[in-house]
Amino acid sequence: MTPGQKQGGPSVRTIPEGEDRERLVCPDCGYIAYENPKIVVGSVTTWEDGRILLCRRAIEPRRGFWTLPAGYMELGEASAAGAAREAWEEARARIEIDCLLAVYDIPRISQVQLIFRARLLSPAIEPGPESVEVGLFAWDDIPWSQLAFPSVVWSLNEHRARLGQRDFPPGGNPPDPVHGL
Amino acid sequence: MTPGQKQGGPSVRTIPEGEDRERLVCPDCGYIAYENPKIVVGSVTTWEDGRILLCRRAIEPRRGFWTLPAGYMELGEASAAGAAREAWEEARARIEIDCLLAVYDIPRISQVQLIFRARLLSPAIEPGPESVEVGLFAWDDIPWSQLAFPSVVWSLNEHRARLGQRDFPPGGNPPDPVHGL
Ligand SMILES: [Zn+2]
Ligand SMILES: [Zn+2]
Repeated sequence: MTPGQKQGGPSVRTIPEGEDRERLVCPDCGYIAYENPKIVVGSVTTWEDGRILLCRRAIEPRRGFWTLPAGYMELGEASAAGAAREAWEEARARIEIDCLLAVYDIPRISQVQLIFRARLLSPAIEPGPESVEVGLFAWDDIPWSQLAFPSVVWSLNEHRARLGQRDFPPGGNPPDPVHGL
Repeated sequence: MTPGQKQGGPSVRTIPEGEDRERLVCPDCGYIAYENPKIVVGSVTTWEDGRILLCRRAIEPRRGFWTLPAGYMELGEASAAGAAREAWEEARARIEIDCLLAVYDIPRISQVQLIFRARLLSPAIEPGPESVEVGLFAWDDIPWSQLAFPSVVWSLNEHRARLGQRDFPPGGNPPDPVHGL
């Protein structure tokens, strides 16, 4: 059984007795899955010359598009350590976390993203299993039309706005021109 | 069936085929529970005179001890909105979020806590179902010996250190005297 082929499990949305909102319940064994928002940890990582580490995705969603090294935080992990682990897994990059660059809320998919600013400790990078290609990009060479997610664009802009600064508040979601968020 | 009385569900720790770490699997239906770290959202909320909102817990863990209004972020919610919801649920407090005060990693229990600084919009507060008592405390009146969790102490100290300041980086875990964290 691979992760994509789950059998059974919680699949029915219903309000369990004594609760006030819908949960996913397994029709076979009655198990209630308490779904929680997920934490994504990632980094804008730069080499000494300022070039930024990007990874081209080998997996869906947005396969073939470029992204920052980032992924779901694991159990028992601290957030900065998780961001460093993701850089290793996706780009075989050894990095040193500098500070928290941004915190993004993506309520549509129930994610909170913690994006750190980090330094690449060695330019020796190569694709991990979830990347088809990795690279270091100067600002003008970033493949802007092929970035995987809006929060990649937000993170890159936040990084640029904070170049040379220290002790700043993390960036947040940009104003939503439609909903005035 | 109440939340405390789950039947069946994922209960066996094993490494699913094609994965690299243990997951909780249901022995009845094969469902794999991907456990993720949880996000706690809360606030250090003050009334106009600087007094701080605390709640005495009606529930375990740490029943009877004082805490900040905080709890698990819900699906589809933004983090600041979640902190405001918790203030309402636990203290019937209407609050306005000011900024992110601290981000704490509690890897032992796989939590990330996002603690905001907030203003109380009306001093009319009362206990919600998870509180036995709520109150507004001047610094010297805080029940220091009866605070529920270390991160409550950390948050209060962070709040005090940032009084009158704006645009600061969020606080993080204090240095660990044992492990040098
Ligand atoms: Zn089941
Ligand atoms: Zn089951």
